[in-house]
Amino acid sequence: MIKIGILGYGNLGKGVEAAIKKNSDMELAAVYTRRDPKSLAIKTAGAAVKSTADLDAGKEDIDVLVICGGSATDLPEMTPKYAAMYNVIDSFDTHARIPEHFSNVDKASKKAGKIGIISCGWDPGMFSLNRVYAKSVLPDGAAYTFWGKGVSQGHSDAVRRIDGVKDCRQYTIPVPEALEKVRNGEDPELSTREKHTRECFVVAEDGADLEKIENEIKSMPNYFADYDTTVNFISEEEMKQNHSGLPHGGSVIHSGTSSDGNRHVIEYSLKLDSNPEFTGSVLIAYARAAFRLNAEGVTGAKTVLDIAPAYLSQKSGEELRAHSL
Amino acid sequence: MIKIGILGYGNLGKGVEAAIKKNSDMELAAVYTRRDPKSLAIKTAGAAVKSTADLDAGKEDIDVLVICGGSATDLPEMTPKYAAMYNVIDSFDTHARIPEHFSNVDKASKKAGKIGIISCGWDPGMFSLNRVYAKSVLPDGAAYTFWGKGVSQGHSDAVRRIDGVKDCRQYTIPVPEALEKVRNGEDPELSTREKHTRECFVVAEDGADLEKIENEIKSMPNYFADYDTTVNFISEEEMKQNHSGLPHGGSVIHSGTSSDGNRHVIEYSLKLDSNPEFTGSVLIAYARAAFRLNAEGVTGAKTVLDIAPAYLSQKSGEELRAHSL
Repeated sequence: MIKIGILGYGNLGKGVEAAIKKNSDMELAAVYTRRDPKSLAIKTAGAAVKSTADLDAGKEDIDVLVICGGSATDLPEMTPKYAAMYNVIDSFDTHARIPEHFSNVDKASKKAGKIGIISCGWDPGMFSLNRVYAKSVLPDGAAYTFWGKGVSQGHSDAVRRIDGVKDCRQYTIPVPEALEKVRNGEDPELSTREKHTRECFVVAEDGADLEKIENEIKSMPNYFADYDTTVNFISEEEMKQNHSGLPHGGSVIHSGTSSDGNRHVIEYSLKLDSNPEFTGSVLIAYARAAFRLNAEGVTGAKTVLDIAPAYLSQKSGEELRAHSL
Repeated sequence: MIKIGILGYGNLGKGVEAAIKKNSDMELAAVYTRRDPKSLAIKTAGAAVKSTADLDAGKEDIDVLVICGGSATDLPEMTPKYAAMYNVIDSFDTHARIPEHFSNVDKASKKAGKIGIISCGWDPGMFSLNRVYAKSVLPDGAAYTFWGKGVSQGHSDAVRRIDGVKDCRQYTIPVPEALEKVRNGEDPELSTREKHTRECFVVAEDGADLEKIENEIKSMPNYFADYDTTVNFISEEEMKQNHSGLPHGGSVIHSGTSSDGNRHVIEYSLKLDSNPEFTGSVLIAYARAAFRLNAEGVTGAKTVLDIAPAYLSQKSGEELRAHSL
C-alpha cells in the first residue's frame, strides 16, 4: 500500500481523499492541517488528523505528501519546504511562475533524494500533456485551449470581494462559433473576447445598488473587462439549489497538416462534475508515479511531461501491453 | 539533424516521408525497398533509394530506421532482425501478438545496445495512451474505443478478394446512439453490432452477380457478419472521384466517478484526412524519442506507454515548462 499524506483539507484536499478511495493500492495515512486538528472531521476511518507542525521533523510515515494549497502564496513556500523531507506533489497553476517554482522544488528534492511533481491536475496537467503530444505529432499546427462550461473559483472570489455582494458563482463558457472554427481546422486568430464569455450569478445584500455592482464586475481589469460578461442577480435559495456544485471542463484542440492537402484535428475534452475531485484524481495517479520513480532512484522536480504514462497505472507493463495497448 | 531511414515505400512509408518534411530537426537519409531501387521515385531531393539488402551489414548511416511493413508477416520478422543493428520503430498492430513481438524486439535490441519502439501510431499508439491515462485517473470507469468514420484498408482488401469485385472502399462508422450513451456517462453494455456499422462502396466487374457479391460480403465471418453492413455498387469514375482518400479517425471515451455523486467524462478524438500520413507523423515524433533515449543509454523494446511526453517534442524541458505546461 502506498501511504498518502494530504496537506490542507479544503475542496482539493477532500477531492484527493475521495480519489484515494478509488485506488486499491493506496491508503490515506494522515491529513495535516493548519487549523486545530480536533476541529476537522474527515471521511476516512483510521486515518489520522494532525497538525502541519508534525511534518517538520521529516519523520512522518508517508510515501507521498499531496500539498493542497493555493498557488498565490501557499505552494511557492510549502512545496520546496516539504520537498526537502518527503516525496511531494502539488497542483501549482500560476503558469508564469512555473519555471521558478520548478527550480526551487528541484534543488530541495534533489538534495533530499526525493521527488517533487509540480503543476499536476488538468490545466496544468492533462491539458498540458495533450498540448505537447499534439504539437509534437503535428508541429505546424496550433493548439487552442478552451475552458468550460464551468465554475471559475478565482473569478467567483473576485466578485465576492465587491461591496454589496454576498455570494457569487462565475461560469466560464467557450464561444460556440470559436470552437466550431477550430474544430473545422480553420486555424482562426481569436481574441480573448472571441474565445470565452463569462456569466455571473450574484446574491446581493439587501438594498445594494445592483447597477453599480454590475458595472464594477464588467469593468474589472484582467478578470472581466476583456470579456462579454452577463450578470444575473438571484436569491440565496436559487444559489443553493442550482449553483452549489463545482463542475468544469474544457478542450484542447490542435489542428495541423501532414502534407499540403491533408489536415488532421486532435481534440481532448473533459466534462467534470467536480473540478476539485477530478484534480484530486489526477494528483493521486501521479502520486503513484512519484512513489515508483523515487523507489527506482529518481529524484528532483518533475512535471507530467517528464513521466511515462505506464507509471500512473496500477497495472504492470506486461498487463498494459496485453490489454490496454 | 536526426537521420531517418524508411524501410518500405507504400502508403505508410510515404506518410513517414511527408512527416519528416514538417520536422526541422530531421532528415530523410534513405528509403530501403524490396523492389528494384531504380523503379522508385521518392519525393525527397537528396535522399538515397537503396535495397533492403544494404541494411544487412548494420553499417547504414541512419539514427533511426522506421519499418513500414505489414503486421501479419513483415514486422514479426523484420523488426527483431533490424533491432539487432539499428534503433527501430514500427506500427505493429496485431493486438493479440504484441507481447510476443515486444519480447522478440526486446532481446534483439538489448543485445545490440539499441532501442526498439513497437506498436506506434494512433491505435495502437495515441489511443493506447489515452486509454491508460484515463483509466489511471478514474480507475472505476470504463474506456470505450470507437473507430471512424474512416476507411478500413483490411476490410476493403477482404471485399476485393471476392469474385466479381474490381475495387472496394469500406467505411467503418460509429453508431451515433452508442457514442451518445457513452458520452452521457451511461456506461452501456454494447455488442459489436451496437458500436459500429460498415458501409461498402463496390465496383463490380461487368456482368457480375451483384446479389451474390452483396451476400458474400454481409456474411463474411469476422469482417462483416457481426455488423450491420450496407453495400453500394458504384462506377469506377465515382470511386475515383469520391473515395480516393484514406480518411480515418475515432474516439476513446472514458467515463468514471470520483465519489458517489460525481461523474467525469474524458474524450480523445481524431479526425484524420489521411490515416497513413497521421500514422507517419506519430512514428516520426517517437523516432525523435528513440534517438534521444538511446543517446541517454536506454536500450530494449519500448511502447508509447514507456516514454515520457517531453521526449517527443523538439522543445527543451525549459521551453516546455515556460510555454506549454
